[in-house]
Amino acid sequence: MSDVEPALLAVDWGTSSVRAYWLGSDGEVIDSSEAALGIQKVTDGNFSGALSHICAHRRADLPVIACGMIGSRQGWVEAPYRDCPADFHAIAAALTPVPGTRVQIVPGLTCRDAGGVPDVMRGEETKIAGTLDDGAEATGVVLMPGTHTKWAVVSGGAVERFMSFMTGELYAVLREHSILGRLAVDSDARDEASFARGVRHSLRSDAAITHDVFSARTLALMDELAGEGVGNYLSGLLIGAELAAARTWLSQCRATAHPVTVLGDDALVSRYCAALKIAGIDNRIGPETAAARGLWRIARHAHLV
Amino acid sequence: MSDVEPALLAVDWGTSSVRAYWLGSDGEVIDSSEAALGIQKVTDGNFSGALSHICAHRRADLPVIACGMIGSRQGWVEAPYRDCPADFHAIAAALTPVPGTRVQIVPGLTCRDAGGVPDVMRGEETKIAGTLDDGAEATGVVLMPGTHTKWAVVSGGAVERFMSFMTGELYAVLREHSILGRLAVDSDARDEASFARGVRHSLRSDAAITHDVFSARTLALMDELAGEGVGNYLSGLLIGAELAAARTWLSQCRATAHPVTVLGDDALVSRYCAALKIAGIDNRIGPETAAARGLWRIARHAHLV
Repeated sequence: MSDVEPALLAVDWGTSSVRAYWLGSDGEVIDSSEAALGIQKVTDGNFSGALSHICAHRRADLPVIACGMIGSRQGWVEAPYRDCPADFHAIAAALTPVPGTRVQIVPGLTCRDAGGVPDVMRGEETKIAGTLDDGAEATGVVLMPGTHTKWAVVSGGAVERFMSFMTGELYAVLREHSILGRLAVDSDARDEASFARGVRHSLRSDAAITHDVFSARTLALMDELAGEGVGNYLSGLLIGAELAAARTWLSQCRATAHPVTVLGDDALVSRYCAALKIAGIDNRIGPETAAARGLWRIARHAHLV
Repeated sequence: MSDVEPALLAVDWGTSSVRAYWLGSDGEVIDSSEAALGIQKVTDGNFSGALSHICAHRRADLPVIACGMIGSRQGWVEAPYRDCPADFHAIAAALTPVPGTRVQIVPGLTCRDAGGVPDVMRGEETKIAGTLDDGAEATGVVLMPGTHTKWAVVSGGAVERFMSFMTGELYAVLREHSILGRLAVDSDARDEASFARGVRHSLRSDAAITHDVFSARTLALMDELAGEGVGNYLSGLLIGAELAAARTWLSQCRATAHPVTVLGDDALVSRYCAALKIAGIDNRIGPETAAARGLWRIARHAHLV
């Protein structure tokens, strides 16, 4: 632990893991810790105990702000979803306090598509807050790949609309539980050519992903795709299908003028940037510390610090 | 067992199960039996023993014709795929004998799409042979729903092109292994309204299935879809996505003038017919005994009987 006195404990608390940041009076990260104590692992509901375990030396009077699934129905205290468009003031004004503690939970966001079908995010709104400029004019597109990848359009400092894709989870269930996984040969090597082949196949005009995934099997069967390439090809197909749909959606949102800012772990960001390049979509890599920065900004808006 | 002397033993031998038919000299089904002895269950490779077990009283000199995964690399003897277009004469001319037996195995079919990507079927070619008229002018569209659903365009007695969709397997892996399954409440009741809602959602012009499946979660989360309806809604989404893509494909094949003949088990056929009706695609239900009829026709073409 640094000698600098922390001003805020900022916690990104998801389903499977939790990451805590001690932030100084300018929002700088003084220290951080990570644990596999996501809300699914806290089976006794003792989130206070889990937080003390993660942040052993925290001062009892230190304000705490948390985002992510910790605010879901299965979390500590439910922080109701806020409707889009939502700017960072609206998010900061809707923090949900945890009774008897100094913990405040950031609300998730919800939006509806043209047909009235809802979408939801929890935690990503905070990463967006930490990615774009702090001003009222913050505008852009943020892509957050993961189990449930999110695309968000930000305009005038507010999250206008967003769209989720089950790309990561689809890859995992097909790889682990379907016939496609049985043909795939495990390999740590990244196979750029097979990945790119999958992306391009999904970007063609008559692509149909529930048919196209079968080609991961037939190409392997015909010895036109090596077993070691099956996983990469499948990943390319699914990410390509996402890009094709997201591109249409961005066009409907009139948001194609902005480069896409990609946030996430290095391997996934690099994979998405390669796919975006194939699709001809301008992109840049966002800050690694987006969650910590976003929690700081929201805490400042809420006058917690 | 009937007193009529069988002329042919016809075996539909798949991955998980096998069904055998004793056919009389006019191709009529005299008797049949079914067992959970699909090729995956015959782990010792003793297919001859498995066949004797399934057909305990068969005469050693009775000709046997078999179709399905029994002809795959993991089956008894590999029956290489035949290229499309393939008429029933071509299929009958390409039977693969099992050495030392009177068993002949029907080849599977393969075709390539405009981009050269291969597709495969094994067993469905035989059901098609048993569905359409025996004449050289047999023409139509056959839909065989299942784990890997197949759509086939038949023209002038030949399978011209076909297209596979992983609809059944995608449903199974999402239902059993994804977050969507955790929200679904098990129910034996068929929920027509939730199913139709899913189909319609996937038929809209900007549908994107890897995004749309997430709505099975968000609608349940917002109490806009009952837990009991989640499975039916998801099934509707996936079948709807298949119909949307198949409709485009049929149009490319110039095959939209024909009603779609649907083959399969009652529950699945009824589900697909409901979806086809919503999509405005004319359809009819094919014969339940398509595999037995197809095996008979191919055996006749091959002069086995």
